[in-house]
Amino acid sequence: MKVLITGIDGYSGWPLALHLLSRGHDVVGVDNFVTRKRVKEVGSWSATPIPPMPRRLAAVKEVLGKELRFYRGDLSDWELVRHLLETERPETIVHLAEQRSAPYSMIDVHHAVATQVENLTGTLHLLYAMKEVVPEAHLVKMGTMGEYGTPNMDIPEGFFEAEFHGRRDHLPFPRQAGSWYHWSKVFDSGDVMFATKIFGLRATDVMQGVIYGIRTPEITDHRLFTRFDFDETWGTALNRFIAQAVLGLPITPYGKGEQKRGFIALEDSMQSLRLAVEHPARPGEYRVFNQFDAAYSVNELAERVGRVAADLGLHPTIEHPSDPRVEAEQHYYNPIHENLLGLGYRRTRELDDVIREIFHDLIRYRRRLVARQHVLSATVNWRLPDSRPLLRARNAAGASPTPPPVDPTAPSSAHTVA
Amino acid sequence: MKVLITGIDGYSGWPLALHLLSRGHDVVGVDNFVTRKRVKEVGSWSATPIPPMPRRLAAVKEVLGKELRFYRGDLSDWELVRHLLETERPETIVHLAEQRSAPYSMIDVHHAVATQVENLTGTLHLLYAMKEVVPEAHLVKMGTMGEYGTPNMDIPEGFFEAEFHGRRDHLPFPRQAGSWYHWSKVFDSGDVMFATKIFGLRATDVMQGVIYGIRTPEITDHRLFTRFDFDETWGTALNRFIAQAVLGLPITPYGKGEQKRGFIALEDSMQSLRLAVEHPARPGEYRVFNQFDAAYSVNELAERVGRVAADLGLHPTIEHPSDPRVEAEQHYYNPIHENLLGLGYRRTRELDDVIREIFHDLIRYRRRLVARQHVLSATVNWRLPDSRPLLRARNAAGASPTPPPVDPTAPSSAHTVA
Repeated sequence: MKVLITGIDGYSGWPLALHLLSRGHDVVGVDNFVTRKRVKEVGSWSATPIPPMPRRLAAVKEVLGKELRFYRGDLSDWELVRHLLETERPETIVHLAEQRSAPYSMIDVHHAVATQVENLTGTLHLLYAMKEVVPEAHLVKMGTMGEYGTPNMDIPEGFFEAEFHGRRDHLPFPRQAGSWYHWSKVFDSGDVMFATKIFGLRATDVMQGVIYGIRTPEITDHRLFTRFDFDETWGTALNRFIAQAVLGLPITPYGKGEQKRGFIALEDSMQSLRLAVEHPARPGEYRVFNQFDAAYSVNELAERVGRVAADLGLHPTIEHPSDPRVEAEQHYYNPIHENLLGLGYRRTRELDDVIREIFHDLIRYRRRLVARQHVLSATVNWRLPDSRPLLRARNAAGASPTPPPVDPTAPSSAHTVA
Repeated sequence: MKVLITGIDGYSGWPLALHLLSRGHDVVGVDNFVTRKRVKEVGSWSATPIPPMPRRLAAVKEVLGKELRFYRGDLSDWELVRHLLETERPETIVHLAEQRSAPYSMIDVHHAVATQVENLTGTLHLLYAMKEVVPEAHLVKMGTMGEYGTPNMDIPEGFFEAEFHGRRDHLPFPRQAGSWYHWSKVFDSGDVMFATKIFGLRATDVMQGVIYGIRTPEITDHRLFTRFDFDETWGTALNRFIAQAVLGLPITPYGKGEQKRGFIALEDSMQSLRLAVEHPARPGEYRVFNQFDAAYSVNELAERVGRVAADLGLHPTIEHPSDPRVEAEQHYYNPIHENLLGLGYRRTRELDDVIREIFHDLIRYRRRLVARQHVLSATVNWRLPDSRPLLRARNAAGASPTPPPVDPTAPSSAHTVA
């Protein structure tokens, strides 16, 4: 099947390309490299060194023996989107090219606007280009479990049987997102649902849980690494915790730490996206998958990271700074996730094993963490209209003027750390 | 009270300014005149001639004896928005400065993107500027009843007691909008709700029904007229029906005509907005008003217009072209509207009387309708990715090269029509 991946340079896009190529699909990708720029903007970098795209493509050819076609471009450019679809005529479009950081969207008004405007514009451009050029193609769009927030009830997969004043209807489940970024995903979901209705497009809307992990079976060489962000804006809580443990810093779940979320291993998220690609929605169908494997509280993550760290000879401690976000710190959480099971999804990775694997890689790249360890501390506050002064002050105080050189082929330094 | 009206040059903004001024409020307005430009873009104009803003302001001073301060500017300009709030420090902001036409948003991809991007950006800029400059101010934001769509149940005012798998929560009522424009309003509602939560702002979100009418008690002089759009993109169904009857064209409800919507007279919408302004939400409160007075089907509107037209000696006919929109043409419709009644709202105008009043004014300006009668025919189709070729062809075929001069002070020509 011919698959276009938008955002192919990103954390999910890159391993998805490798996975689909290894399954025999014809993969083409597009990216504007904005995540690289924005991670730099907040003073950070990927723990794993990520080569420039030409070297990534060369490594794919050399290691996997596959051709991966790449377009550099921005989905905000309508002519580019239409040209891309006319040239490639994909059967499936996996749309990952969005600003994907909640804290980044909360930095200030300009980051809020950029997040919502860019995410909406790219999606609308794709929907119209699909209608004009490849109306039979299937859109697999990346949403987030965060669209639903934390209602005091089970969360269905997109729709539920609602009742009010004695009458019933099958309605979209209410969304209560927790950041401008998460709202941008809610908005995208509305636009995609509407496009399936007016244009008859096929769409799978993936309510993605938090992904954890650094490796997939196809990442057999350091040149094939995907990025691994650990700073306060781009890294997930789990990523930050492991980086903190590697650096000997306290692990810091925000607030009470009883915030629960749905999680899935990187490899299993790729399995899920591949299942969606290989089992397309019907024409006019808008299908929602809650794509996660198990729910954990932030405290559970911190404890699991702490246990693995201790096994590795580290001496982790856990601290609870006040929560810079506005969110329920204790709540009911039980989302349904059955649609993917129906397509044959099976868990292949266990959280503790993946945590161990991440530790192994982060210890190897420990010097890259040391050089940027100030980016772990929280500066972006949901209640402030402008967190830039705090962010700048942190980076000015913490930035290492000359980061140490890194040799990605150097052997793991796990033993020297332990 | 000091009130800032964004979009003061528009159909609702202008009469609201007059109404609040006459009630003793201090009113300041901002507008970028984009509705004037966009009505021209689709080949139309307001049936009522609208003077340039300096003449409008002079007329306010002369007729009402009031000063109205005006800023020309675009809410997409963050510095302008912040400067405006710093200079004026309004206690209430009535936010009407949005692209407000569903068909306009459906013309093509660029109109879809412009609608969603501009509406979201302006609202985000206002929310952040409020937080920074006037965090105690009250935002009255214009939404639409169209956010809810037509679910098979009563529609509450924003929130309802939801139940799923035996658990209950107070949740936002699901939104199912029917155009990119209506979705942009859904998105705004999400952002405003979230801003009340993180920033503690006060907000009233007005789910506005379709407004009908051309006059309010303050419009005592033709120089104080508000705009009245009758073309397929900017005019409401009722406006088009009356224009068709005046021109001796068939009245054209789309499809089966059993589409029901909530309606309210212009004067009563101004009453409602004034009640919201004078009874602000509490800090951190996000309050939703379903602002309409009664529900009618499109067929009922066509019949009522036909009856008034016949009374005036016209010979109306009704035709049903196929529906260019994607919408339920027959459905349950019973939205709740109690919050405004609780603040003292009382209906002051009856639909038939207002229809009669509109006929009177449109007959007076009949020559302006004649010169633009081609803009009544439908070209924008929800199922097409690009309706511009049809729109351009219609206007090229129908445009009158030299529109006849109009004397707005001329006596009504009702008798010569009848």
